[in-house]
Amino acid sequence: MSTKSIVPEFEAANEKYAASFTKGDLPLPPGRKVIVLVCMDARIDPARALGLEEGDAHVIRNAGGRASDALRSVIISQQLLGTREIVVIHHTDCGMLTFSDTDLKAKVRSDLGEDADHIAFLPFKDLKQSVRDDVSFLKKNSFVLDVPVTGYVYDVKTGKIEKVEA
Amino acid sequence: MSTKSIVPEFEAANEKYAASFTKGDLPLPPGRKVIVLVCMDARIDPARALGLEEGDAHVIRNAGGRASDALRSVIISQQLLGTREIVVIHHTDCGMLTFSDTDLKAKVRSDLGEDADHIAFLPFKDLKQSVRDDVSFLKKNSFVLDVPVTGYVYDVKTGKIEKVEA
Repeated sequence: MSTKSIVPEFEAANEKYAASFTKGDLPLPPGRKVIVLVCMDARIDPARALGLEEGDAHVIRNAGGRASDALRSVIISQQLLGTREIVVIHHTDCGMLTFSDTDLKAKVRSDLGEDADHIAFLPFKDLKQSVRDDVSFLKKNSFVLDVPVTGYVYDVKTGKIEKVEA
Repeated sequence: MSTKSIVPEFEAANEKYAASFTKGDLPLPPGRKVIVLVCMDARIDPARALGLEEGDAHVIRNAGGRASDALRSVIISQQLLGTREIVVIHHTDCGMLTFSDTDLKAKVRSDLGEDADHIAFLPFKDLKQSVRDDVSFLKKNSFVLDVPVTGYVYDVKTGKIEKVEA
């Protein structure tokens, strides 16, 4: 608790946001009926990068933008909230390219004294292949509806998305 | 595949974004050393609502903004990318308040013909309690560092965050 918390800054920024907020009447189901699955990476702002407004899309984010880790949310989105398309976005210079599952399990054991053998950290070595793998996971998974699934790589140096062909 | 895909609209919006992109030199670790864990709800734009710029924060999003479902990503963020604070945000009118785990498992069985008994969908009945539960989960979990964890409810009608006391 020795470092300065970000919380006062978030609260001040939110006060400004709320002061000019005009989107209080949006319905619960996403207007554009799409799920965007993106890495949690700090450099990516999916709303700005894809032209999303409040109300448009379910945005699922996790380390790597991995599909298997998003399955619970995808099922809820499709079964209860009517989304009918999925866009998967991984990105250049991703942290997931920098370690192995074995590495991180060893670090957790040495630094935290905990056994993380039951956690799959889902790193990858080939960025485009990781997108193909996750598109394929979603297309083949029997809990996921047969909807369009498109995969992209986002370039953190240029802000551009590039489609990854299946 | 009968409905119109959103993909051309995303690509057009991204072309505009990339044309004026000036943030190509940001480092991989989040500048503000914080994880923001938020629901995937379409009506919430965490960057606008909290004043986040590209490079500031890891943003983890899933159905409900549930902490147990975010654990893999939290460990990666803290162990490999140096974040030292967590902000949890659930919100009013959340889809997770509208169903039970049993309901959704039954729907998956009847609509998809699949057995989802191994998936915990993590709905909740009490919004503030769900925030308290997730803050507590993160504070007590032995894989999570002892860092400040603050919980909020975001009001989709006003755009305001309200702190939930532990």
